[in-house]
Amino acid sequence: MNGKPLVSIISAGMTKFGKHEGLLTRELFAEAALEAFGRCPKLEPKQDIKAMFIGHMGEAYEHQGHTGSTLADWAGLTGIAATRTEAACGSSGAALRSGIYAVLSGLADVVIVGGVEKMTHRTTAEVTEYLAMASDYPFEQFHGITFPGLFALMANAHMHAYGTTEEQIGMVAVKNHYHGTLNPKAQMQKEVALQNVLSSKYVAWPLKLYDCSLITDGASCIILTKPELAKKYTDQPVHIVGSGQASDTIGLYERQTFTSLNATKLAAKEAYEMANITPKQVNLAEVHDCFTIAEILHYEDLGFCNTGEGGKLVETGATRLGGTIPVNTSGGLKSKGHPVGATGTAQVYEMYLQLTAQADKRQVKDAEVGLTQNLGGSGATATVHIYRRDN
Amino acid sequence: MNGKPLVSIISAGMTKFGKHEGLLTRELFAEAALEAFGRCPKLEPKQDIKAMFIGHMGEAYEHQGHTGSTLADWAGLTGIAATRTEAACGSSGAALRSGIYAVLSGLADVVIVGGVEKMTHRTTAEVTEYLAMASDYPFEQFHGITFPGLFALMANAHMHAYGTTEEQIGMVAVKNHYHGTLNPKAQMQKEVALQNVLSSKYVAWPLKLYDCSLITDGASCIILTKPELAKKYTDQPVHIVGSGQASDTIGLYERQTFTSLNATKLAAKEAYEMANITPKQVNLAEVHDCFTIAEILHYEDLGFCNTGEGGKLVETGATRLGGTIPVNTSGGLKSKGHPVGATGTAQVYEMYLQLTAQADKRQVKDAEVGLTQNLGGSGATATVHIYRRDN
Repeated sequence: MNGKPLVSIISAGMTKFGKHEGLLTRELFAEAALEAFGRCPKLEPKQDIKAMFIGHMGEAYEHQGHTGSTLADWAGLTGIAATRTEAACGSSGAALRSGIYAVLSGLADVVIVGGVEKMTHRTTAEVTEYLAMASDYPFEQFHGITFPGLFALMANAHMHAYGTTEEQIGMVAVKNHYHGTLNPKAQMQKEVALQNVLSSKYVAWPLKLYDCSLITDGASCIILTKPELAKKYTDQPVHIVGSGQASDTIGLYERQTFTSLNATKLAAKEAYEMANITPKQVNLAEVHDCFTIAEILHYEDLGFCNTGEGGKLVETGATRLGGTIPVNTSGGLKSKGHPVGATGTAQVYEMYLQLTAQADKRQVKDAEVGLTQNLGGSGATATVHIYRRDN
Repeated sequence: MNGKPLVSIISAGMTKFGKHEGLLTRELFAEAALEAFGRCPKLEPKQDIKAMFIGHMGEAYEHQGHTGSTLADWAGLTGIAATRTEAACGSSGAALRSGIYAVLSGLADVVIVGGVEKMTHRTTAEVTEYLAMASDYPFEQFHGITFPGLFALMANAHMHAYGTTEEQIGMVAVKNHYHGTLNPKAQMQKEVALQNVLSSKYVAWPLKLYDCSLITDGASCIILTKPELAKKYTDQPVHIVGSGQASDTIGLYERQTFTSLNATKLAAKEAYEMANITPKQVNLAEVHDCFTIAEILHYEDLGFCNTGEGGKLVETGATRLGGTIPVNTSGGLKSKGHPVGATGTAQVYEMYLQLTAQADKRQVKDAEVGLTQNLGGSGATATVHIYRRDN
């Protein structure tokens, strides 16, 4: 592929992330779709869009499966081919990959890809139980471990192997909360001081309350087409030049290491090779900071720094807005929020804003090449995509 | 496309359908995958297969989501891109469509597509509740209607509009149970007399116990590649020459009619046009007989007979083995069983056996062109695929 655009993004939409009382999943998604349609007046949604892929993680929240067709109908696209993809919190990253396949196949010139989750109407205990379905039932859930515990094992291993400190891990939260103050769609638009992170309650040692992402309602979507058709719809497309998807064992207990996620490495390798770039050429990234420690692992697995140096990277400020490689300018899952099925395409939404110079107060200057990384569970699924601004 | 192969099937696998006590979803699927690998000794699964799409409907059965990566791992394919697709009982039909996109995209030359469901360890009440998630929560489930009731509304409407009789509807069960006796992998390998169907207990008038498909454990899969690579792997590929997928409103209450399923019609139109054939050229079909009345609707929506004449078609014996268009030679969902996520690719498995002359006692003589139709819910998703024997 050698750096040529695979497909082009011609529009994007996203609800505010947070608490949307009284709305159904389908209503949330329709709001995101309407924003995307509104941004692209040359698109005739009902006529042009040929397929829909929807990342949606949990049927239990609303006792509702069969989400693809339902959302297509409520977005005014009744009749089109609509498929839900599920890969835990990586569900809409997998939807994006499926949408890229569809456009490249020649069977669907314009597709809508998105994700949605409505979570806040459930109790924290219910949400914890539903999220746990993304881990291994017989060998993890059954024994009582949930996601904070799984990521705490990774944090512990990383601290032991590389001397990463609780302070460094907490700095991810501080940075992403700062970024969130600049994003009007973020769930928590408030800064937190490192001391507050460190003195927050332990959830699973060494991870504390402020090391955990949020429980959120939200939806996001993008519209893709062939690069040669993009200018028919918009003057400002964003091109996807690399795509990678990979898997790993669902349970941590079978992995070779706890300090690195192999699915991310495999997906990154595929995406970098397709885009024909090195990590050094990436100007900004949105990565899957479901827990602060995860962001540190991703720095290393994506090649933004050497193995073991993720903690130092955040400490230097390199990944803060204004640094050499700003990460999670949207606020990330930590501050923007984490409506699980919607997260993957919400990352793409931020990249679309950044690479079309619409990111306002959090705009990365001269951003040209961006990367998103979306994770499922404790790393059994990862997708990595690379984007390039139109010239 | 004009009748040219889109992709080719080089192998297929399926567990026996029925009760598999003590097995997990992942173990069931591995059994189907191993059959497919064993049938195709020239395939190096770990090296050649680049992506996996898995139809799986319910997370609740095993409190387990994130099925794609889990099944990839247990099938010995750890690391590959693996995505679960969910479109209710049409989940693996949607997986097939996604697999076709992937092969046509040029990003994945060989893909595995399959489906799985483990249901029998749950009570009938639990299964009914889990299946209900495929219908509309606020406007159907909430008011207490479940799938037998929804299909009963269709049966009632069809009887009223066209004079279709309970006897004709029951003949679908008689035929499919006969076919099931010829399929060693069918769950119920026993004939039923029309009188027994008619005297079985009403579940939702006019549908009786013997009008309903079964609760089943099972898994199925196929392996797809580009037509030009097929002969590298097997002397007997089966070509997919048409593919259609469409959606409809999730709730029946918004449909224009109860006597026809528009998603099937739309998907069939797309598939027939791609294959460049008319319904008269189809030699055999596997259709989604979740309830007997559904098969009658499908005859009409797929163009095997005129509108309103589905009841008469089964009465003439045309759709029985030996007739002009044998339907559900596998036994169908009614007798082979209906492990919901596995059903779509189990239909393809039957087509693969028929079009490679491996269907033994139920072989359709000189079968050249086949069709499969997979349905989600009460018709909010439909996929239609058309197959051609290799010359």
